[in-house]
Amino acid sequence: MLEAIISAVREAGKIMLGAHAGQEDISSKQGKANFVTKYDVAVQQFLQERLQKAFPNAAFLGEEGESSVLPEKGDVFIVDPIDGTTNFITDYRHSSISVGLARDGQMQAGVVYNPYLGEVFAAERSRGAFLNGARISCGSRGLAQGTVGFGTSPYHPDLADSSFALLRKVSEVCLDIRRSGSAALDICYAAAGRTALFFEMVLEPWDYAAASIIISEAGGACTQIDGSPITLDKGCSILAGNPTARADFAAMEK
Amino acid sequence: MLEAIISAVREAGKIMLGAHAGQEDISSKQGKANFVTKYDVAVQQFLQERLQKAFPNAAFLGEEGESSVLPEKGDVFIVDPIDGTTNFITDYRHSSISVGLARDGQMQAGVVYNPYLGEVFAAERSRGAFLNGARISCGSRGLAQGTVGFGTSPYHPDLADSSFALLRKVSEVCLDIRRSGSAALDICYAAAGRTALFFEMVLEPWDYAAASIIISEAGGACTQIDGSPITLDKGCSILAGNPTARADFAAMEK
Repeated sequence: MLEAIISAVREAGKIMLGAHAGQEDISSKQGKANFVTKYDVAVQQFLQERLQKAFPNAAFLGEEGESSVLPEKGDVFIVDPIDGTTNFITDYRHSSISVGLARDGQMQAGVVYNPYLGEVFAAERSRGAFLNGARISCGSRGLAQGTVGFGTSPYHPDLADSSFALLRKVSEVCLDIRRSGSAALDICYAAAGRTALFFEMVLEPWDYAAASIIISEAGGACTQIDGSPITLDKGCSILAGNPTARADFAAMEK
Repeated sequence: MLEAIISAVREAGKIMLGAHAGQEDISSKQGKANFVTKYDVAVQQFLQERLQKAFPNAAFLGEEGESSVLPEKGDVFIVDPIDGTTNFITDYRHSSISVGLARDGQMQAGVVYNPYLGEVFAAERSRGAFLNGARISCGSRGLAQGTVGFGTSPYHPDLADSSFALLRKVSEVCLDIRRSGSAALDICYAAAGRTALFFEMVLEPWDYAAASIIISEAGGACTQIDGSPITLDKGCSILAGNPTARADFAAMEK
């Protein structure tokens, strides 16, 4: 199952790499950092065609799509064609393609691909998590020994105060903070033990669906900030990391 | 001149890429985020040998070296063997080798290499700035249209309050913020127009020497946060970006 998804995602990555992003017309959607480029749509259309050929019974739910209803039964792909659109548009070279597969409302498989570094993070339920075919583990680095990725929920300026207050507190107990601009990669980096933790106040299902099962299969967890399960039918906050760092975060004075 | 430096730096990058960083013993130096690995020293020794062969009259000033005195006359290499050591140790894959050449106390040339993406940023005084041989420009993206990289000066916890206060203000007027962990790359990304601006409260000369001439030659500027010239004989604050973003920053209510 993963092979077909990985193959489609690698192909789609070529569309991204072929873009001269900085020279493209950019139309703004909602919120100052929410851009749509023709590449977003091109990548999604390509993936939809390829995946529906390989998985004819699966529904398709993408960031750029018309449908946003998660079916309770059966298979559905939850896709972010370009996670880190601002990075893509500004040629920052840290974006990803994120393809999750949910079955009967639960994550079953996930693939996140960074075409710039040629890194494919992938996992299938109960079969472990892999980076370019090699098993990965989230490790057990506590906050004092690890960096923490964060998101600023740029589409929700009302959350900026609480977001920065939390960031400040976390920064006092962790090694250093990181802000990459691709939540899917941030969660995968925690899955690979590159960072200890990632948090953001609000994300959408296509941002975290694929990565959430990758970090679970790598020995970590992806929940809401208060520890409750993530939702796939609507957005939520995200706290993803290894068990030690998650415990450090929970014990932190907030 | 640049060719010899680029060739040495590309070779040195292989030492970095060959490292299984996560499996190495790590000894802490000063401050929780200040690590030294054997790769830091290995890269610096390699560069010192190669550069002193090619430039026998040049002195050598490196982060891991014994000397930290900048000669007023003549040529001196100012080198950070691995800028972004925390990233290197945690396998975050965003670090660089930074080699600047100062002449009579002024930056004359700079090369910053990211071996993970295979990107060489390079500039020589009055000859323009280049990324992998192609001319780059910092562009004219204002803060509202661009992202802003920042550093947290993790070795200076006393600056955390003012650092985060400034970050919060900048975040309100820019597209989004980025924290990559390699100041040399952050300045080069601003030089290439990938970000609008980069700031950090305290950095050391080897962090910014090479990148400072790269962004100058790309049409931008690298100064202290108050606009005064950077110092090469001791550390200082850094504000690097294109002229529009720098003007936006200066006009910002602080």
